[in-house]
Amino acid sequence: MKDHMNYTLLCDFYELTMGNGYFQTGHAGQICYFDVFFRNVPDGGGFAIAAGLEQVADYIERLRFDEEDISYLRGKGCFCAEFLEYLKTFRFTGDIWAVPEGTPIFPGEPFLTVRAPAIEAQFIETFLLLTLNHQSLIATKTNRIVRAAGGRPVSEFGSRRAQGPDAAILGARASYIAGCAGTACTLADEIYGAPAGGTMAHSWVQMFPDEYTAFKTYCQLYPHSATLLVDTYNVLKSGVPNAIRAFQEVLLPQGITSCAIRLDSGDLTYLSRKARKMLDAAGLTECKIVASNSLDEYIIRDLLLQGARIDSFGVGERLITSKSEPVFGGVYKLAAVEDGAGNIIPKIKISENAAKITNPHFKKVYRLFENDTGKAFADLITLHDEVVEESQPLELFDPDATWKRKTFTDFTAKELLVPVFQRGRRVYRSPSILEMRTYCAAQIDLLWDEVKRFENPHNYYVDLSQKLWDIKQQLLKGRR
Amino acid sequence: MKDHMNYTLLCDFYELTMGNGYFQTGHAGQICYFDVFFRNVPDGGGFAIAAGLEQVADYIERLRFDEEDISYLRGKGCFCAEFLEYLKTFRFTGDIWAVPEGTPIFPGEPFLTVRAPAIEAQFIETFLLLTLNHQSLIATKTNRIVRAAGGRPVSEFGSRRAQGPDAAILGARASYIAGCAGTACTLADEIYGAPAGGTMAHSWVQMFPDEYTAFKTYCQLYPHSATLLVDTYNVLKSGVPNAIRAFQEVLLPQGITSCAIRLDSGDLTYLSRKARKMLDAAGLTECKIVASNSLDEYIIRDLLLQGARIDSFGVGERLITSKSEPVFGGVYKLAAVEDGAGNIIPKIKISENAAKITNPHFKKVYRLFENDTGKAFADLITLHDEVVEESQPLELFDPDATWKRKTFTDFTAKELLVPVFQRGRRVYRSPSILEMRTYCAAQIDLLWDEVKRFENPHNYYVDLSQKLWDIKQQLLKGRR
Repeated sequence: MKDHMNYTLLCDFYELTMGNGYFQTGHAGQICYFDVFFRNVPDGGGFAIAAGLEQVADYIERLRFDEEDISYLRGKGCFCAEFLEYLKTFRFTGDIWAVPEGTPIFPGEPFLTVRAPAIEAQFIETFLLLTLNHQSLIATKTNRIVRAAGGRPVSEFGSRRAQGPDAAILGARASYIAGCAGTACTLADEIYGAPAGGTMAHSWVQMFPDEYTAFKTYCQLYPHSATLLVDTYNVLKSGVPNAIRAFQEVLLPQGITSCAIRLDSGDLTYLSRKARKMLDAAGLTECKIVASNSLDEYIIRDLLLQGARIDSFGVGERLITSKSEPVFGGVYKLAAVEDGAGNIIPKIKISENAAKITNPHFKKVYRLFENDTGKAFADLITLHDEVVEESQPLELFDPDATWKRKTFTDFTAKELLVPVFQRGRRVYRSPSILEMRTYCAAQIDLLWDEVKRFENPHNYYVDLSQKLWDIKQQLLKGRR
Repeated sequence: MKDHMNYTLLCDFYELTMGNGYFQTGHAGQICYFDVFFRNVPDGGGFAIAAGLEQVADYIERLRFDEEDISYLRGKGCFCAEFLEYLKTFRFTGDIWAVPEGTPIFPGEPFLTVRAPAIEAQFIETFLLLTLNHQSLIATKTNRIVRAAGGRPVSEFGSRRAQGPDAAILGARASYIAGCAGTACTLADEIYGAPAGGTMAHSWVQMFPDEYTAFKTYCQLYPHSATLLVDTYNVLKSGVPNAIRAFQEVLLPQGITSCAIRLDSGDLTYLSRKARKMLDAAGLTECKIVASNSLDEYIIRDLLLQGARIDSFGVGERLITSKSEPVFGGVYKLAAVEDGAGNIIPKIKISENAAKITNPHFKKVYRLFENDTGKAFADLITLHDEVVEESQPLELFDPDATWKRKTFTDFTAKELLVPVFQRGRRVYRSPSILEMRTYCAAQIDLLWDEVKRFENPHNYYVDLSQKLWDIKQQLLKGRR
């Protein structure tokens, strides 16, 4: 079993130089609000899926500088003694709100908000971003692949190409939340409960005098979970016939009809159609065909369009690294500070690039659902103390073209962010991984198909309340 | 400080089902040889850089199934009681040879070889591949970026976009070995000694009433390491003038002339040239200009070609994920087995795709250097017991076009793989990370510039000895 770890120093060094600076200049206790949000959906998709919150909460709970950390920092020679002393009892004392894992999220909306003294809020930036960026990336990619498979199970097979041990384990976790049926990563099962499975590699076949013996032996050992890898020598001339023989000789006499073959190379459409015919002709109509080999959502879609007879997919490197777009660009931006009297002073980060201007203030996010269809039609970002009245008509407008306005009635508004920490205390316990997976699938069902297209998806509306929009405009006018 | 972890179950589940199968069928003790090699250099480059060996060795040393692991496996219901009992005392008892970290490696040649009982050799596959693939990927990418920077220091800034905690920490480690000057990742410094540094984020500037106060305060706190981030508001109208004022008011009176500004957005060529003129006009000729913002080897090359006045680079997501090609395709293939009498029986994996046919047998790899230039001109893969005689002319031939032959004299032959484990005992201790970095740079200096081109590099020769080539041909003819 993997032990827990002290990730306290998994931070950019500047979090510490800034922390020491805040400490020495009296800014350390200044209450700040930071938002985590992203700007672009990977692969040009219509939405992303939030994941990684449980690891963020674990990190916050365990945050402490041990003797070795303090000694290391002292050796750097740039931190004052009082700051190092302060770090010995450093704990997170603030508040965190976040969307539950598995929630579909859209560009520009905060999916995690921190309220904490400057020094604490700043310090946790790196770990929060890397964890949310990584798992949200893999969850988002996985869900594309799972949707392409159209209900056929997809297993995560990518450990050997993952970017380090955590990428394998946590990637398997995120992929299960986002819809994978299981993983090859045993440790992800032991730690997180993402069900692990797997049968044989080519080396198993090579270890025996011939393919038939290798298959027969495997069926004898594992009669109830025999998936035979049929491409070590020649799929149609050797692999499938030997598999059929092994199934017939070992499984059928025991009354076992559920079994499978796996194709890991070659033209998967052609081979799966031929193999299906051979299996059916042998009476093995319940034998499944599993396919693997550099698959992703596009290849799976094409295979199925071409009539491949594949029952389930194993997906490796292109899922576990999100190969086509391996970066999820979540950012952590200051949205407000509090003055001494507890008043919230909104802050904005302007940019030459209009898309990079941040939404100021302490906010919340509502997801709006049509009552007749149940489908989500927009997200609305409001000030923290605004309430959306479902009984009143709601006017939404495009924040970039404010003359585009539309009024909605008969809708339900649901707040997306839930409290995770209150005054340093963890108040949110993650559901089981299976519950998260079920929740994720249910939330995605509430999106229109148009938002789920792979190419040119419908642009889901993320609007600002009038009050928030007004404050943003005032800040923009007020800046140099 | 991060604790050590038990990664024993970080394996594909099929390693366990096969292990149980080998155990039950008497194959567990069969001595096997497995090679790790790769087929394609990422980004179309001329060579890759091996990294990750120290973590592989740590993993092998710590390999053991604890009570929790055994209990988890028992719960899966597919492993026999004797196998679970056997796992309680499972240790690696075999031999491992590998190239030292930082060594340039080429497609097709083993850069790690395992000789061990089948059950052990099979079991370690997943962790070995994921570790070597990840760190070799980042080392290879980093070295491209470092070479593009032409001697200007490159710092690794990517933790927040890394694929999980290990990807940040171990990625920083690999990037330092391959030539980065440092990292922003504090934990990579604490654990591995990759020097961490960093100064301020935009939030520092936002926390103060104005940019000038933020800069002045920072210079007062850190007069000897002040790198001021000048793009929060407007680089040329506000950032650079405020930085100059802070440097002049705080640093110059103390006689400190070494300082820096950082550009993190906008047209880096234009801004750096303008900023350079302003700094020089203010007498701050020793002030360095640091640039960051989605850089990679291509952008850095273009910036320098266009006359950007940048002294050092911070590189984030495109390095830490190797964004343009985030997968290093190292594989683990059976090369031979031993019979009961200790004879080595070569094994080959054939494929429709000629490039995927493996090189059989227990092998070693020589790197051949010209004595007059000192440069490497080819690698030669031989049988394990062949000796290359430097005093004799050496005939090399293209393994795909054997009529292409050339005879070499006046060369030096150096074996690339060194013993890492012998009969289960670790016999190789990694040099310090700084020694690895120095070694890596020296080895790359021994390659011809033609091999180091970004586009269409010269194809470095990796040839087979006549004996090895003959055995491979015999096996190919002998297969179905």
